[in-house]
Amino acid sequence: MSKPRTVIIVAGGKGLRMNADIPKQFIAVSGKPVLMHTIEVFRRFDAAMSIIVVLPREQFSFWDELCRRYNFAVSYKLAEGGESRFYSVKNGLELVSEVSLVAVHDGVRPLVSAEAIERCFAAAEKSGAAIPVVDMVESIRQLTGNGSVAVDRAAYRVVQTPQVFDAPLLREAYDQEFSALFTDDASVVEAFGAKIQLVEGNRENIKITTAMDLKIAEALLPEF
Amino acid sequence: MSKPRTVIIVAGGKGLRMNADIPKQFIAVSGKPVLMHTIEVFRRFDAAMSIIVVLPREQFSFWDELCRRYNFAVSYKLAEGGESRFYSVKNGLELVSEVSLVAVHDGVRPLVSAEAIERCFAAAEKSGAAIPVVDMVESIRQLTGNGSVAVDRAAYRVVQTPQVFDAPLLREAYDQEFSALFTDDASVVEAFGAKIQLVEGNRENIKITTAMDLKIAEALLPEF
Repeated sequence: MSKPRTVIIVAGGKGLRMNADIPKQFIAVSGKPVLMHTIEVFRRFDAAMSIIVVLPREQFSFWDELCRRYNFAVSYKLAEGGESRFYSVKNGLELVSEVSLVAVHDGVRPLVSAEAIERCFAAAEKSGAAIPVVDMVESIRQLTGNGSVAVDRAAYRVVQTPQVFDAPLLREAYDQEFSALFTDDASVVEAFGAKIQLVEGNRENIKITTAMDLKIAEALLPEF
Repeated sequence: MSKPRTVIIVAGGKGLRMNADIPKQFIAVSGKPVLMHTIEVFRRFDAAMSIIVVLPREQFSFWDELCRRYNFAVSYKLAEGGESRFYSVKNGLELVSEVSLVAVHDGVRPLVSAEAIERCFAAAEKSGAAIPVVDMVESIRQLTGNGSVAVDRAAYRVVQTPQVFDAPLLREAYDQEFSALFTDDASVVEAFGAKIQLVEGNRENIKITTAMDLKIAEALLPEF
């Protein structure tokens, strides 16, 4: 039988202080805030799965207000964000049941497809650790000491989320001391010694971090 | 005094055979075919510069028809495409005057900014070879023999066009025998022994190769 499934949606974008931009997860595209789209993708994917949303405490009341304004009634648990993404995931993990598969997903990636989510969970069920990747479309160059060199883009993959792991593995990996080399969950688990399986993501699954990304999401979201 | 400026716009997308998709350069976004947007960007950038459009011969009549249908009256010279991008650029180069700076640009990149074009020409005026790059936004992994490893995305740049060169240098570089390692003009010039200067591109300047890219361009073009 399959293990129960959980997703930790990390929405740690800073802001809401005086003069700061509103974090992208709260900006409305295609009718509602980005983060609501993201939560809905997972609820549609699996009506029974546990959804944990990690938000900085200072954003709780603003989020509450948004949920009332948009009549947002999807069920999820709320966890408090930490100083950085690493500590936010750790906080979210405290709400995860011991025997399960845990996906960690960026709150600003509402365009992940159900197929990509399923591929990650299915692969992690067997291997313990699976992440979605897509081919590199553009040419790339690597910086060197005094210039740069063309490198073969076919040897690289672009990494997305959800990154899915066996819960005990992820928990143990996150018990390591924080390192600046931890750029995503896969790198935390890898530093712990586990092997990461790459599965096919979906190209639309962009991370919304700029005004340009918001326009792209607005153009692509209606089909999701 | 500045050298005269030329751009070779390479629009080599295959298609137009029975049952093949129409090449993306001919698909209308924001009111007209992609390639017309691209040509207009350079004409707006410099009313006097020489613009050379390289198209496969079998697409000449279809392009003519499009130009009539859209009343496209921007001035440019047409060159015949070759078997591959390498030979298309070579053909375009035959129409370039000896003493000039030559930009080579993808026909399916209508979103390049005037500022990025100017930065490339200005840098190539001094260094002889300059290309626009942008930071890598997403995490990346490098494939290894039996898996993959996280690599530091800060050490990489995404390569765009226009790639701008001193005409004699580019011509001599393109006199080399073709190699499968030639993925763009910079790699041809680099194989010839010249150093490539990286300048700042603009993130919107995507290469339109998929249906998703067309939607993105439709969302971003109105501001250009």
